[in-house]
Amino acid sequence: MVRGEHFHLGRDSSEEEEDAMAHPFCPGYQNEPFRSLASEYPEADVFPRGQFRIEWGPIFHRGRLDGTARVLVIGQDPAQHETVVRRVLVGEAGRRLQGLLAKLGITRSYVIVNTFLYSVYGSVKATTRRDPRLVDYRNRWLDALLVDTEVAAVLALGGAADEAWQMWKKTPHGQAFTGTYAPVTHPTQPESFSKGDKAKLAAATKKLLSNWNVGLQTLAPALAHPDAPTPLVLYGDTWADGDRLPVPESDFPAGLPTWMHEQDGWARRVGKDAVEKRRNITIMVPKGIVQ
Amino acid sequence: MVRGEHFHLGRDSSEEEEDAMAHPFCPGYQNEPFRSLASEYPEADVFPRGQFRIEWGPIFHRGRLDGTARVLVIGQDPAQHETVVRRVLVGEAGRRLQGLLAKLGITRSYVIVNTFLYSVYGSVKATTRRDPRLVDYRNRWLDALLVDTEVAAVLALGGAADEAWQMWKKTPHGQAFTGTYAPVTHPTQPESFSKGDKAKLAAATKKLLSNWNVGLQTLAPALAHPDAPTPLVLYGDTWADGDRLPVPESDFPAGLPTWMHEQDGWARRVGKDAVEKRRNITIMVPKGIVQ
Repeated sequence: MVRGEHFHLGRDSSEEEEDAMAHPFCPGYQNEPFRSLASEYPEADVFPRGQFRIEWGPIFHRGRLDGTARVLVIGQDPAQHETVVRRVLVGEAGRRLQGLLAKLGITRSYVIVNTFLYSVYGSVKATTRRDPRLVDYRNRWLDALLVDTEVAAVLALGGAADEAWQMWKKTPHGQAFTGTYAPVTHPTQPESFSKGDKAKLAAATKKLLSNWNVGLQTLAPALAHPDAPTPLVLYGDTWADGDRLPVPESDFPAGLPTWMHEQDGWARRVGKDAVEKRRNITIMVPKGIVQ
Repeated sequence: MVRGEHFHLGRDSSEEEEDAMAHPFCPGYQNEPFRSLASEYPEADVFPRGQFRIEWGPIFHRGRLDGTARVLVIGQDPAQHETVVRRVLVGEAGRRLQGLLAKLGITRSYVIVNTFLYSVYGSVKATTRRDPRLVDYRNRWLDALLVDTEVAAVLALGGAADEAWQMWKKTPHGQAFTGTYAPVTHPTQPESFSKGDKAKLAAATKKLLSNWNVGLQTLAPALAHPDAPTPLVLYGDTWADGDRLPVPESDFPAGLPTWMHEQDGWARRVGKDAVEKRRNITIMVPKGIVQ
């Protein structure tokens, strides 16, 4: 790949190396403290089977673990696409998040963790949410990503993520953190809320975008060193072109096919009853790829 | 985990660290030359769609990429479990291979690559098998794992793997390699060959085990530093207790659930015709895990 000299300004060497890779990928959890965090995670005694899809294993993160992240995102919980890919927020919610980050000039310097390590099944009890073992483990991730790092802005997606943030903020490390924080509505809340009612969906989307504009205005001033400096353009009343952006290939593990990161809808839970659905993930390669 | 002093003798520090991890995992392709190999792989122009399930992406390896491997295994091609897990030989063939390696005292110092980077669909044409781009890429893996490394023994599973070996052996690096080589029958050849006929299966299994005994006797003298020194015990006429061993958790990516590495049969290709089957992988959590 040949690049003009001007692209070299302000770009670090790891970024340039990655650009030169045919299929850049996420290197995962080789280095501490992430190596230990990806090995010593809490299991069914902390995340009860009645409240979490613990049978699919924990899903830890997406994005930069190499110290280059400037924005930390706290997500909600992983669904079936995330389970196959083993990374956080890789579907529609992830593309909306990429759009929001791009409005802040953040195209690669982000890292995302989950409020809950496992997909929620039904709802989560307060005693579970407050279990010190659950909270302490999550706080170890937040410490690793926020104490003495370049992260200057934190975004929480949804209520549970906001609660996770408040719990960390009460710790000594949290109290010492001086970055900017914005809690916003979860990216697919309008779809969950409106349950197929188009008028409700339009109203909820408008409300979400207005809420996200507040978030953007809160976080933008904190980001003195964006990847791609850009004037802040707020959202309108509906999704516009460019508001949803692809999840970069470099966020996925090595070797995953292109269709897994270009779109979602390729993984579903299929079954004749609740238990069978819970046991199942059905992957279909999108039409037009095989023949 | 508390361990007796005597376990420390002859064990390197990375091994001890791994044992101390609650859920050890494969760190993947972070370091060169594997980082480039996992990024610059050949695609549909080299592995034609009519001969390979290229739509699921490449599956690179299983085992040690940190220079500690003493045995290299060349496998055949990845199937549906390997596609989900993104590692080579994780099903029944993999467990039989673990048993064979254990008879040589090799419990962790191995590395496995595939003859073909993608799952074979139908059969592979000679022009494809000999395509210099396919061969050169595979030879880059073999160079990385065999030139100036600790690998003293190479095992090829099946005819295509043997051909891959012969092609590398003709290169200057191959000619300079002084380790011991044994081609053996593919671990699940008896099942493929017998197509449900029990008498044929028994005869083919007996033949495979006899063939594997030759392989064991060829390779055992080359392994001066096994992980777990053990007298060589040959196979009988049928599979015996201990001939099939679990694929270690440390060979899988971080966070995969236990059932994915304790057994197979949890991933199938389902569909009403060949195209639909090709587009599908259906994962079912084994019974008894969800409820």
